[in-house]
Amino acid sequence: MADAPHPASAHPEPAPTELTHFRDGLPRMVDVTDKAATTRTATAEAWVRLPPEARAALEAGTNPKGDPLTVARLAGLAGSKRTADLILLCHPIPVTGADVQVTLEDAGVRITATVRTTAPTGVEMEALTAASVAALNVYDMLKAASKALEITGVRLLSKTGGKSGDYRALQTSQTQTARTEAP
Amino acid sequence: MADAPHPASAHPEPAPTELTHFRDGLPRMVDVTDKAATTRTATAEAWVRLPPEARAALEAGTNPKGDPLTVARLAGLAGSKRTADLILLCHPIPVTGADVQVTLEDAGVRITATVRTTAPTGVEMEALTAASVAALNVYDMLKAASKALEITGVRLLSKTGGKSGDYRALQTSQTQTARTEAP
Amino acid sequence: MADAPHPASAHPEPAPTELTHFRDGLPRMVDVTDKAATTRTATAEAWVRLPPEARAALEAGTNPKGDPLTVARLAGLAGSKRTADLILLCHPIPVTGADVQVTLEDAGVRITATVRTTAPTGVEMEALTAASVAALNVYDMLKAASKALEITGVRLLSKTGGKSGDYRALQTSQTQTARTEAP
Amino acid sequence: MADAPHPASAHPEPAPTELTHFRDGLPRMVDVTDKAATTRTATAEAWVRLPPEARAALEAGTNPKGDPLTVARLAGLAGSKRTADLILLCHPIPVTGADVQVTLEDAGVRITATVRTTAPTGVEMEALTAASVAALNVYDMLKAASKALEITGVRLLSKTGGKSGDYRALQTSQTQTARTEAP
Amino acid sequence: MADAPHPASAHPEPAPTELTHFRDGLPRMVDVTDKAATTRTATAEAWVRLPPEARAALEAGTNPKGDPLTVARLAGLAGSKRTADLILLCHPIPVTGADVQVTLEDAGVRITATVRTTAPTGVEMEALTAASVAALNVYDMLKAASKALEITGVRLLSKTGGKSGDYRALQTSQTQTARTEAP
Amino acid sequence: MADAPHPASAHPEPAPTELTHFRDGLPRMVDVTDKAATTRTATAEAWVRLPPEARAALEAGTNPKGDPLTVARLAGLAGSKRTADLILLCHPIPVTGADVQVTLEDAGVRITATVRTTAPTGVEMEALTAASVAALNVYDMLKAASKALEITGVRLLSKTGGKSGDYRALQTSQTQTARTEAP
Repeated sequence: MADAPHPASAHPEPAPTELTHFRDGLPRMVDVTDKAATTRTATAEAWVRLPPEARAALEAGTNPKGDPLTVARLAGLAGSKRTADLILLCHPIPVTGADVQVTLEDAGVRITATVRTTAPTGVEMEALTAASVAALNVYDMLKAASKALEITGVRLLSKTGGKSGDYRALQTSQTQTARTEAP
Repeated sequence: MADAPHPASAHPEPAPTELTHFRDGLPRMVDVTDKAATTRTATAEAWVRLPPEARAALEAGTNPKGDPLTVARLAGLAGSKRTADLILLCHPIPVTGADVQVTLEDAGVRITATVRTTAPTGVEMEALTAASVAALNVYDMLKAASKALEITGVRLLSKTGGKSGDYRALQTSQTQTARTEAP
Repeated sequence: MADAPHPASAHPEPAPTELTHFRDGLPRMVDVTDKAATTRTATAEAWVRLPPEARAALEAGTNPKGDPLTVARLAGLAGSKRTADLILLCHPIPVTGADVQVTLEDAGVRITATVRTTAPTGVEMEALTAASVAALNVYDMLKAASKALEITGVRLLSKTGGKSGDYRALQTSQTQTARTEAP
Repeated sequence: MADAPHPASAHPEPAPTELTHFRDGLPRMVDVTDKAATTRTATAEAWVRLPPEARAALEAGTNPKGDPLTVARLAGLAGSKRTADLILLCHPIPVTGADVQVTLEDAGVRITATVRTTAPTGVEMEALTAASVAALNVYDMLKAASKALEITGVRLLSKTGGKSGDYRALQTSQTQTARTEAP
Repeated sequence: MADAPHPASAHPEPAPTELTHFRDGLPRMVDVTDKAATTRTATAEAWVRLPPEARAALEAGTNPKGDPLTVARLAGLAGSKRTADLILLCHPIPVTGADVQVTLEDAGVRITATVRTTAPTGVEMEALTAASVAALNVYDMLKAASKALEITGVRLLSKTGGKSGDYRALQTSQTQTARTEAP
Repeated sequence: MADAPHPASAHPEPAPTELTHFRDGLPRMVDVTDKAATTRTATAEAWVRLPPEARAALEAGTNPKGDPLTVARLAGLAGSKRTADLILLCHPIPVTGADVQVTLEDAGVRITATVRTTAPTGVEMEALTAASVAALNVYDMLKAASKALEITGVRLLSKTGGKSGDYRALQTSQTQTARTEAP
C-alpha cells in the first residue's frame, strides 16, 4: 500500500487507467506515509437556491441575536472536522485553520469555505465538506418555508500546495455557463 | 422549554415571519416532544457533473471487485446515520431503513437516497445528507482525474408522512429548467 | 441486568447502599428496557466567571454578525446530542427538543439548558452536558484574554417526569450561599 | 425498501438466495419501519488468549485502584453505543441496558456482553461489538508484554425477542470443539 | 485566515479589541498553519460538590472491583479525545499524553487533568474538557443519591509551551476566595 | 506523565511489573510527547468461520454490483479511523494509509488489514481494529443465514518501526496449532 514497495503490500503502482483510490480493482486509503507534510489550502463554494418563500423567510428570520447564516457558518466550520468520518477513503487531517463565509446574494445563499493544514495530502475534501454541510444547515432552517430549495454548484474554487500544483477555477461554474442568470 | 417557565411547552407557535428553528430570534432545537411518532419517508437526489477526464477515469475504474459507485453508495448509507452530527439543530432520528442508489448517467453520476423512520419529525435532512455524502465520496475518488467536478441538484424528490403532508418534486430541478440537457 | 430476572443476568436488585450504576460492585448501563417511555424535561445551569479583561473582550467582541454567545449557544445545542458519547454509562436518548440560553450578567456568563425527550429515562445528563459544553465554548473564545476564567455552578435547576418525581432547585447554588454577590 | 411496497422503492422481496442486506445485488439498510418495537436481548462472548508473559503482566497489573479488566469492561459498555458507527448497514438502536463482564480464566480473558433494547430489530451486533471492543482494549493494555495475543471465539451466546425466535448457542464454540483445552 | 496574507483570505489581522476567534466580526477557526509544532502541556481542575447523601453513596459504592472514581477517570481520558467535537472553533489536536486524577477530598470530588501534545496550538481546552467530562461522569453515577450535586471550580491550573508563555494559577480559585471552606 | 520528568507529573517510571498503561496502579494515556514521529506499519488478521448455510448465502450474495466482502473491506478501512474512539487509552493517530483485504477461503472469510502512519507510537491497534470491524461487518451481513458464525484468530501478523523493533508472527495462529484444518 506504499509508494515504495514494502513487505505487507508489495504491489506495483496502479496502471494509468486505474483510480488512485483503488489498487488491483479494490478500494484502499491511498498511502501517503512517505510524502512530506507541506502547507496546503483549499477553497470550495456551494450555493443554496432560494424559492421566493424561502428568501422571504430567511430575510424575516435574520436578526441581531441569531442569524441563520451564522448557524450555517458554524456548522460548516464544525463539519470540516468531520470529513474523515464521512468520506470513507479520506485520510484524517489535522485541520489548522478554517473559515466559512455564508452570504445572501441575489442568486441565493453563497457559501465559501477555506481550509488549511500542514499535511502530506490536501484539504480539498475538507473544504468541500465544510461547504456542503453549511449548505445542508441552510436548507434545514428554511425547509419549513419551501420544499423546493436546491443545493448547487458545490465545487473547488482554488487550491495551493501539493505536487499536483496550484489550481484556480474558472469564474463561472458548469451550472452557470448553461444558464443566463447567476449560478 | 423557553424563557418563561412552562410545564411541557405551552408557548404559542412562532409568528409567521419567524423561522421554526428560532424563537425570539434565537436558534433552538424545535420541540417535537408532544408530536406522535409516525411513519415517514423522504427521497433526495444529487448529481455529480463529470468532466470528460473524470468520466473516463470512472469508467476505467469500474470493475467487478470494487466499483467506485459502490463505495459512494455505502458512504451515503453510513452518512444518513451522521445527520444529527452535522446539522446543528437537527434531532437525532432512529433511521429504520435507508437505500442509496448511485448510477452513471449521460449527465453525470446520479444519486438518490431514500430514508425511512418512525419518529415525531421527518427525515428530509437524513435523505439529503445521505445524497450529499455519497456525492462527496464520488468527488473524492475522481478528484485526481479532474478538479472541475461539481455537485449539483441536491434536492428533495418526495416525502410522505408528517402533518405538512406528502410532497413530490417536479420532474426537473431548478437547474435543469435552465439547461437543455439533463440536470 | 433487568428489572425482571432473565437468563443472561439473573442477579438480584442492588443493595440499598449500592450505586444504581453498579451491580455486585461492577459498573453497567442500568437496564431501563422494561420502563415505559414518558415525557421528560430537565433544565441545567452553568456560569462562566469573567475576569475584567475577559469581560471587556467579550463586550468588544459582541457584534451583530457573530456574537460569541451565539457560538456557545449552538455548541451547547449540539453538545446535548453528544451526551452518550461522553458519559460512559449513559443511555443514548433521542432528544426531542433543546433550548440553550447564554446571557451576559453582572456575575458572568449565565447558561441555562433545557432538554426534552420521550424516553424510559431522564435527560438530566443531556441538560448538564449542554450547559457544560456551552460553558467550555465561552471559555475557549475568551481564553486569549484571560487565563483566570472559571466555570462554576453547573447544576440541575429542575426536572419533570420519571418515577422519582419533579424537582426544582433552591434559587441559590451551594456556591452562591457562601458568597455575597451572585453566584 | 420496505416490507410492504411503497412509492419510493416498490421492489419485490429479495429472492431466497439473496442476503437480507442486499436487494437486486446492492447493499442497503434493511427496512424495519413497519416492524413493531419489541423487547430484545442478546449476549455475546469473546476470548483473549494470553501468552505467559501477558498473563503475568495482567496479574501484576491488577490492583485495587485500577484494574485493566475494569478498563476493558467500561470500553465494552461504551463500544455498544458505537455499533451503528462501525457496522455500515446497521440501524442505530437506542440501547436500554448493557452489561459487560470481563474475567480472567485459565484459558484467557473471557468477555461476555449482554445488551437489551426495545426496538424493531435485534441487538446481536451491539453485543458482539461490545465484546469485540472490550477484547481490543484488553489487547491494547497487554500488547507491550506480548505480541502473540489473540482474540478468538467472538460469537453469539443467546438472543431473545424478534420473529426469528430465541437462540442459545451450544456450550462449546467451533474453536473449542477442535481443541482439547478450553476455548 | 492566516498569519501571513494569502490569496484565499487576505484580511488584515484582527483589531486589538476583537476576539482571536473572530475576524471582521465573524467566527472562524484560527489559522495556526504557519506556527511551529512545539511541546505543550496543560493541567485543569474541576470539583464536584457532594451533598451528604451523595458522599455516603459514593463511599458505599467504592469497592475493589469497580470504583466510581475509576469510571470518571477513564471517561475523562476518553473525553480529552473529543474536544474538537465539542468546541466548535477548536482545532483537532493529536493528544500525545493524558492523565486524569479523580480523588475524594473533604470538599468533594477533585479532578485534575493533564494533557500533552506536540502541536502548533495549546491543549488548555483538552485539559478542561477532560476535567469537565470526568466531573459529569461523577455526577451521573451519584445523581440517584442527590439532585443537589454541583460542578464547580473548572479552571486552568497551569500550562507550558506556546508563545504566550507559561502560566500557573493562584492556589485558590475565584470561588474559593469568597468562601471559608475548600472550594 | 512523561518519559522525562516535568512539573505536572513528576512521577518515576513504572516498576517493571506494572503495565505501561498504568502508573501507580491507575490507568492513563501513555505519554509519547517526547518520542520522535517515525514511519510505522502494522498488519493484522482476522477470520470469520462460516457454517455451511452462511457460506452458501455468501456465495449466492456475491455479485458484480455489490459484493458483501467489499462492504466489509470498506467498513474495515473506515474502522481504522475510529480506533481512538473505541480503545479508551489509545492515542489518536493520523493514519496515512490503510489497506484491508477480505477474501473467501476454504476455512472461512479471511481479513488482513495493513495500516501505516508517521507518528510517535505504533498502529497495531488501528490494524487490529480495522480487521475486527471488517469481521463484524461480515458477521452482520450473514447473521440471517446462521447464528453460529464465529470471529477467530484476530492477531498481529507483523509490525515495523518503533523502538521495540520489527515483528513477524509465526505462520499459524494459536488457534490453528491445536487444530487440523486451517485456522
